[in-house]
Amino acid sequence: MQRTSFENMNCPIARSLDRVGEWWSILILRDAFYGLTRFDEFQKSLNIAPNMLSRRLAGLVEEGLLEKRPYQDKPLRHEYFLTERGRDFRPVMLALLAWGNRHFAPEGEAVIVTERATGERVEPVLVDRASGRPVTDEALFETAPGPAADETTRARFTRRDAKRETLSTS
Amino acid sequence: MQRTSFENMNCPIARSLDRVGEWWSILILRDAFYGLTRFDEFQKSLNIAPNMLSRRLAGLVEEGLLEKRPYQDKPLRHEYFLTERGRDFRPVMLALLAWGNRHFAPEGEAVIVTERATGERVEPVLVDRASGRPVTDEALFETAPGPAADETTRARFTRRDAKRETLSTS
Repeated sequence: MQRTSFENMNCPIARSLDRVGEWWSILILRDAFYGLTRFDEFQKSLNIAPNMLSRRLAGLVEEGLLEKRPYQDKPLRHEYFLTERGRDFRPVMLALLAWGNRHFAPEGEAVIVTERATGERVEPVLVDRASGRPVTDEALFETAPGPAADETTRARFTRRDAKRETLSTS
Repeated sequence: MQRTSFENMNCPIARSLDRVGEWWSILILRDAFYGLTRFDEFQKSLNIAPNMLSRRLAGLVEEGLLEKRPYQDKPLRHEYFLTERGRDFRPVMLALLAWGNRHFAPEGEAVIVTERATGERVEPVLVDRASGRPVTDEALFETAPGPAADETTRARFTRRDAKRETLSTS
């Protein structure tokens, strides 16, 4: 099934999704954060068809999230390592983790985030770097058109603000 | 194409991905954050086939991310609103936005996060709620098995820690 490409959309979320590929790719990245590097390790962990895994790994290399290094000559075999761009996906991963823990773990949490020094559990929250206030507080923060916003993007915000206006006066 | 279900995996990231559906669903949620509520609004914004949009909306309602309310009787028409669970997806969305801005916006940023009161641009970072330190600093924080970790999950961490050991002594 040919997936629509979101690459040309004037939206950082759509572009991120376009580059990550699909769910399998995120689970491959997750496993790379766990330190897995080899084809058979990913395959065993994910129970994924080899041709699918090859495709996803190649895609992640192409998008600059993983890099490939040979570790054996005959036959030639590669390991896959997170690039800087790949490591930088960590906040998305941790945000998914926190959301999953809050909403889909009725039997308790399988994976948590801890402070290495103490082993204490910590709670990740998204804040404004400068003020430390939660960016998710919609009374304080909002998304807005950036310098490269095109007409479609600007229209999205104009509609949003008009809707807000309607809601607040009705 | 039948997608593998990640629902039963003992991993909050896999479960989150399972519930969100796929990329279209995230873009529908994005548009819901922009205030879109009606079928034709989503369709126009996303340029998505109607049957695909119907399926995705139904999926998001089923997973408790959107709720459906009638706004017209003849013919019956519904609007779709974010539930609490849906609103709580915002950190994931903003983390995707920040990643996309950093890595895939060579011509500049199309969408940014701003402080409503001042219009100033802010930078969202993921921190430990208690200490305010960046959770993405792998020297300070790590993921660890939680109370509901099963054997597979625990084995994942055992392997990770063994790999780290090898790397630090080699």
